[in-house]
Formats: sequence, structure tokens, C-alpha cells
Amino acid sequence: MRNLTEQNLTDAVIAKFANSTDPRFKQIMTSLVRHLHDFVREVELTEAEWFEGIKFLTATGQKCDDERQEFILLSDTLGISMLVDAINHRMPSGATESTVLGPFYRAGAPEIEMGGTIAQTDDGDPAYVSGRVTSPDGKPVPGALLDIWQTAPNGLYETQDQDQPDYNLRGQLHTDKDGRYAFRTVIPVSYPVPTDGPVGRMLKAMGRHPMRPAHIHFVITAPGYERLATHLFAEGDKYLDSDAVFGVKNSLVVKFEQNTSQDMAKKLGFKKAPFYTTHFDFGLKPAA
Amino acid sequence: MRNLTEQNLTDAVIAKFANSTDPRFKQIMTSLVRHLHDFVREVELTEAEWFEGIKFLTATGQKCDDERQEFILLSDTLGISMLVDAINHRMPSGATESTVLGPFYRAGAPEIEMGGTIAQTDDGDPAYVSGRVTSPDGKPVPGALLDIWQTAPNGLYETQDQDQPDYNLRGQLHTDKDGRYAFRTVIPVSYPVPTDGPVGRMLKAMGRHPMRPAHIHFVITAPGYERLATHLFAEGDKYLDSDAVFGVKNSLVVKFEQNTSQDMAKKLGFKKAPFYTTHFDFGLKPAA
Repeated sequence: MRNLTEQNLTDAVIAKFANSTDPRFKQIMTSLVRHLHDFVREVELTEAEWFEGIKFLTATGQKCDDERQEFILLSDTLGISMLVDAINHRMPSGATESTVLGPFYRAGAPEIEMGGTIAQTDDGDPAYVSGRVTSPDGKPVPGALLDIWQTAPNGLYETQDQDQPDYNLRGQLHTDKDGRYAFRTVIPVSYPVPTDGPVGRMLKAMGRHPMRPAHIHFVITAPGYERLATHLFAEGDKYLDSDAVFGVKNSLVVKFEQNTSQDMAKKLGFKKAPFYTTHFDFGLKPAA
Repeated sequence: MRNLTEQNLTDAVIAKFANSTDPRFKQIMTSLVRHLHDFVREVELTEAEWFEGIKFLTATGQKCDDERQEFILLSDTLGISMLVDAINHRMPSGATESTVLGPFYRAGAPEIEMGGTIAQTDDGDPAYVSGRVTSPDGKPVPGALLDIWQTAPNGLYETQDQDQPDYNLRGQLHTDKDGRYAFRTVIPVSYPVPTDGPVGRMLKAMGRHPMRPAHIHFVITAPGYERLATHLFAEGDKYLDSDAVFGVKNSLVVKFEQNTSQDMAKKLGFKKAPFYTTHFDFGLKPAA
């Protein structure tokens, strides 16, 4: 293993994994090294470009902290997250399509009552979201846990914004015996992914906008079913066809309908009309 | 750009680079995305494996500081650095082969006189390294700058070791009018790359040892010539055929000859014999 060349270096590196005791790790690293080497050969990467890459990856790691995950953002904006999602969630008919988890999930959101609100302030257009969680054949899934999060009307998640209350617009909710769920929130807005880090610089250099169409995040779990990470997107959003992270699926786009009934507003817990409603039934895929 | 699938997602991501104003950046990112997506499809990366990758890259970035570059180490140990080196230094006959820069280069090393020492302590076996810097046709290159660094006999670079003096075993030296250089140091030793970070964990999982054969680093620069980053490796080292970073070339292996002359030791500036000598002529490639 001396005098390695452009031609035989890749095989020499892969031969070094021969002693790996984990066959899956060996398979993954072999494929990764082959593709990364092919990339370097294909573009004939210069030393200056290699060093820009090193600096970019270093800055991406160093931008991460408890509330910021720049490598997930990089994966999202290069379509890798959606590709992993597509490969891992080949959905049967009747199951809801999945989409990116994104970098803003936060565990420990407060549990709300059926019909309760995740909005801790009066900002934004009030919305009522309801529906059922079912198996692919339409049977209700009682006791499913919905973990829900979204940005405020200013386009920021509470972890990005010191002016929002802790856990604002995050909540957890269980379905009832008929698989039903309902909660109050505000209509989501489109917003830019964070652009003050390496990924923002990359998007700018690519001539790409950083916007995501308005959406509400859901992670739904229930015993006997696969975890579902998905969004509901707001119909009419101008970024539905150019999502910076490639996550939009038509089956996940919902319409928020205006309702002007003051009686209904009070009954649902809103201060006044108008408010907006949408309805969506989630289908879970049975666990393998 | 909705309802993207395993099959059409890659093209959708690449289409997003259409507005990039830098054709080279676009070329690089297009190739990189194609190969990364092909990798994900080929191994059918699971969500858990993807997240391990995210955590690994994040930890690698966060291990970096002013004196530690874990991403360069990752590039080195996956053979990417040597591949970039091979592609960028297709050497004409008479030019010295290059090898990895490595993560331990430090700018600003003290300049020494001809025949001076880079060793600031008495540890190790004293060595005298000398030779010439020439063009490929053998003409001397006067005034070439040699930037030199190596580990101490304990296997640590001074930046890794609080007990060594600042800039120990680092120095800069100019060739004389005949292209000659000479300096004193200690015989280099084999040593492990740092194993206390993510790359160390990766090497362990691959069943690989972390050792590099003994070597002295050189970066040589001169007006009108390409920068040369290379090593001199010590003949007989047991790791010459299994360098953790794939950097060994036979043309760079030198023998350190023992010399027992007390007179010669004093003349060269050593306290006593025995000492060791080696001779190497560096050939620089004219700049394009």
C-alpha cells in the first residue's frame, strides 16, 4: 500500500475496511468512499476547493448547538433528508405520506386537552385543526400521540425567538376513543430557513431562495404503528412549488376555511370570529 | 416541484442550482449531490443511520479548534486528501512527489540559519537533514522557503503537548545561492493520528489502526514554482505499508545513517556522537 495513484487509491482505502466487524457499517462506508472519490475525480477538485469544503463542513458543525442543527439543514436543502424519507416510507394506500422532520423539533412540548390551544399569545389568525387518526383500512387509532409544532406569524419557531413564550406553538395531544384529535393554533406562514450560517451562504451561491411554504409539523406515534413525521401545508402558499427542502406533497396540502360565526368561535374557545378551520385524517402504517 | 420521489428527487435538487452565477460551483455541487444521492439509494440508508451520520459530522465540526482540524483528519483517513493531492500534482520527471498536508501545519514557525536546529529540547536521536532544491532539470533554486514540522519523540506535535516549548520541532529555512538547505532535528517516530474524536471512533469501527509511519513534513515554496507539500519518511518503519492516511510514496523514503564521529558532531552543532544524517534533493514543478 504505497505509491497509491488516482486509479488505485479508492480500492486501497476500501480494502482497509476488511477487518470491520459490522457488515452494515462496512457496506455503508464502502459505498460512501466510492461515491466521494468518484466525485473528486469527476470534478478534479482543486486543493483550494477541497479546503473551502473543509472550512464549510467545520463551520456547519460549529454552528450547531442545543437549538440549532445546521447539518440537518444542509441535508434538508440538498434533498438528502427527503430522499432518506422516501426510501424509508414507501407508504401503502390509506397511509399518510411523510416529509422532513426538519431541524426545529423539540421534545417535551406541553400536553393539551382535546380542542386546546398550542398558541400562548394572541398573535396571528386563529385556526382550528381537527380530524382522525386511522389505520390504512380506516379503523380509528385511539390514544395516538400527536406532537405538533410550527412557527409564529413572524416566521420564527420559539427556539429562534426570545420574545416568544417557552414552547409557544408546540403541543402534544392524544386521540380519543374514536381516533379523533382537535386543537387550536394560528394559520402557519411561509418563512426562510436560517440563512445566517454556512447553509445560508450555500443557498445564496446557488441562486436559491431559502423559503419554505407555510406548514404545521406533526410527529404521530401509536403502539403497533410506524412513527409518522409529516406536515400539513397551507393551500395557496406561493412557495408550494419551490420549497427549499423539497418536502411538499399534494396529499398534505389543506385549505384553511374562514368561519364568521361568533357563536361557533366562542364554542371552540376563540375570542371572536372570523377564525379558520381545516380537517385532515392521518393514516398510520402498521409496524413491520 | 411537488410529490418528489426516490426517482426524480435528485434532478429536482440539481435543477435548483440553475440560477447559480458561478459555473464551477454549480458543476461541483451537481456532481456532489448526484453522488450523495446515489450513495443513499445504493445502501438504502435508514433514518437511524442518517441521524448517526448527522451526529458524526456535527461532532467532527465541534472537535475542531485553532489547533485541531478533525475534518482534515477525516478527509485524510478516507483517502480523499491523497486523491485530491494526486489529481492536483501530476508531477513531471525530476519533480518531487507530494503527499498530504495533514491537520498539524502551523504558520509562523521561527526562521533558522543554514544548519540550525528546529529541536528546542535534547530529547530524541539527533539528525542532520540536508540537500538541494532544484528545478526538474536539476538547476538550483536559491531562496526557496522550506517550512518544516514533525512530532517529538513522544509522537506528539507541540500543539498537542503542553510540555513542549512553543513551536518545538517547527522551523523555516531558505535555500542558499546554490539551492542548498541543511537543518538539525531528531529522527522522526511513528505515531497515531488523534483517536479521541469522531474519526478515532470511525477507525476503530473499521478495524483499522491509527498509525502513521515516521516522517518529517515539508512545504516548499519559491517564486515561479508550484508549492510542494510533502514528507520524508524514515526507511524501516513498520507502518510504511499501512499508513492510516495513505500517504507513503517510495520516492519519499530516506535512510537515516548513523555517524559516530565526535569531530563531525561538534562541527555540525551536536553535543556528541552518534548522530544520524540523511540527504534529499527536492525537485520543484514550474508554475503553470
